Amino acid sequence: MNNTTDTRVTVIGLGLMGQALSRAFLKAGHPTTVWNRTAAKADRLVAEGALLAPTFGDALKASPLTIVCVTDYPALRELLATTDADLAGTTLVNLTSGDSAQARETARWAEERGARYLDGAIMAVPPVIGTADAVILHSGPESDFEAHKPVLEALGTVSYLGADHGLASLYDVAGLAMMWSVLNAWLQGTAMLRTAGVDAATYAPFARQIAAGVAEWLPGYAEQIDNGSFPAEVSALETDARAMDHLIEESEALGVNAELPKLIKAMAARSIAAGHGAEQYPVLIEEFSKPHEG
Amino acid sequence: MNNTTDTRVTVIGLGLMGQALSRAFLKAGHPTTVWNRTAAKADRLVAEGALLAPTFGDALKASPLTIVCVTDYPALRELLATTDADLAGTTLVNLTSGDSAQARETARWAEERGARYLDGAIMAVPPVIGTADAVILHSGPESDFEAHKPVLEALGTVSYLGADHGLASLYDVAGLAMMWSVLNAWLQGTAMLRTAGVDAATYAPFARQIAAGVAEWLPGYAEQIDNGSFPAEVSALETDARAMDHLIEESEALGVNAELPKLIKAMAARSIAAGHGAEQYPVLIEEFSKPHEG
Ligand SMILES: NC(=O)c1ccc[n+]([C@@H]2O[C@H](COP(=O)([O-])OP(=O)(O)OC[C@H]3O[C@@H](n4cnc5c(N)ncnc54)[C@H](OP(=O)(O)O)[C@@H]3O)[C@@H](O)[C@H]2O)c1
Ligand SMILES: NC(=O)c1ccc[n+]([C@@H]2O[C@H](COP(=O)([O-])OP(=O)(O)OC[C@H]3O[C@@H](n4cnc5c(N)ncnc54)[C@H](OP(=O)(O)O)[C@@H]3O)[C@@H](O)[C@H]2O)c1
Repeated sequence: MNNTTDTRVTVIGLGLMGQALSRAFLKAGHPTTVWNRTAAKADRLVAEGALLAPTFGDALKASPLTIVCVTDYPALRELLATTDADLAGTTLVNLTSGDSAQARETARWAEERGARYLDGAIMAVPPVIGTADAVILHSGPESDFEAHKPVLEALGTVSYLGADHGLASLYDVAGLAMMWSVLNAWLQGTAMLRTAGVDAATYAPFARQIAAGVAEWLPGYAEQIDNGSFPAEVSALETDARAMDHLIEESEALGVNAELPKLIKAMAARSIAAGHGAEQYPVLIEEFSKPHEG
Repeated sequence: MNNTTDTRVTVIGLGLMGQALSRAFLKAGHPTTVWNRTAAKADRLVAEGALLAPTFGDALKASPLTIVCVTDYPALRELLATTDADLAGTTLVNLTSGDSAQARETARWAEERGARYLDGAIMAVPPVIGTADAVILHSGPESDFEAHKPVLEALGTVSYLGADHGLASLYDVAGLAMMWSVLNAWLQGTAMLRTAGVDAATYAPFARQIAAGVAEWLPGYAEQIDNGSFPAEVSALETDARAMDHLIEESEALGVNAELPKLIKAMAARSIAAGHGAEQYPVLIEEFSKPHEG
């Protein structure tokens, strides 16, 4: 293992997240240059050992690796438009949140100007940056990721997804969809159980166990999707659909919200109407892969 | 530990599930009496050692414990109406799927006739009955569950939820809502990633990790609900809502289904409109606990 803590790094954008990133680099011993549109936000970091670059261009030149983390891509473009800084030889790791098209477009822009470019997505809040709980996704050229991984690891658990610059943001929103779905299903169940006097803390371990148990099925179910074949090894969609009706009826009878149950049923009903009632749940990928008309 | 394998047990209803239940009792060594409206369905079980009772009443009298597993509660009521069998001293464990009101009503009916009654829900398919993977939930008087637990354990992993007979079916549908929600969120992510050429098997381990990770938060989040206080310790609902917009926009841009993302956002938007934007996600329990008007 090389000692990489003497590798210089630059952080552009010192909002809540940029400050946390800078602090993690400083803590890991990296000489850290910072720059922010509003310079005062660098004060505390400078007191902690960071170097404040006078201009955006100086910040880029200070280190072989520059992390950018501003509000959004329009802010990023505004920032980049104000500079004619030479990007040749620079590696940019852009941790600003955005969509896959923005990531791919920014990658083209940067590469046209001679920069190496990785796009990233931070699946964590500022207080956990610098710990293993901070998951940070990266996509772009693998050699650039590998070259800078030892430095990036100061930020948390870093992972590489593939060469397509859009992947980090796609995995990010897909992961968020999972997060909100687990939370919503838990809230649905909690609302139902509370009508019977069961408190949230009593129900939560059961919900946790089901979510973790179903998560284990996903790799196996994925094989059905990749093979395009959905034999009802465990249960047929038609059988599921009858239980979905129970869920809707029970939610309505209890006077709790029934929108989530109804959406679950509507997706399944469409797939059954398309002739897939005797197949297994993952056949719903066909419904999820197209917009709903109407 | 007592040797309980000589305890007699009766199974009523020999559909796919009833046959699996009977077989598990036989395998565990219990003298097993069976009865089914269509007697021919008992043939194979009799060949495997089961005793076929000539009438429903005889089946009830044959054992101190009777498991009932028919299509649904209307079928159960039809069955019970055809008999004037004496239920005094009998313990019924009803594993027929239904809603909480049906379970409570049937409990009253049985108890008025002198029977002890437990309601149950089978969270498993017939092939896994008799293994630890078969989770079977029970509710009703705890002493009745404890008395028959050693016999019921022949069927799988049995658990007791509380005295309210409606609890088994409530936990059952709540668990199903979690199951379908994890699967749907995974399908949403899979559909998105496939547009970038990522196959389902590549994405699945990531989805599994997120689902299992979020499941770990539920007990902590449950405390917020039970305390009725939702400080934004990790993130405010308003911040989540902006990322929800990204999820919707990305889904639409990729041409995949956006109904699940839109429902996620709609629930959050309503809670924000009700003044909870600066609070944390579990505050949505208020939306999930009431029907949506309109
Ligand atoms: N905070 C989180 O929990 C979290 C979690 C995951 C991902 N993220 C992502 O991280 C990024 C930054 O978030 P944050 O929480 O640090 O936001 P923030 O506290 O609001 O900071 C925004 C930063 O962007 C800069 N900025 C905005 N417009 C600019 C422009 N036109 N030119 C130059 N700089 C500009 C701001 O500079 P000024 O100081 O001059 O205004 C500031 O440094 C976002 O994309 C966010 O989605 C945040
Ligand atoms: N199979 C599963 O994967 C599964 C999983 C979890 C829970 N469950 C639940 O288990 C229960 C049974 O399911 P199953 O798969 O065994 O269904 P099934 O194969 O369709 O069998 C239905 C059973 O109910 C009996 N029945 C129906 N109407 C009746 C009536 N009016 N009087 C007397 N008997 C009547 C049938 O008798 P005949 O043979 O005379 O028609 C048969 O024994 C259902 O509540 C189901 O939701 C099933």
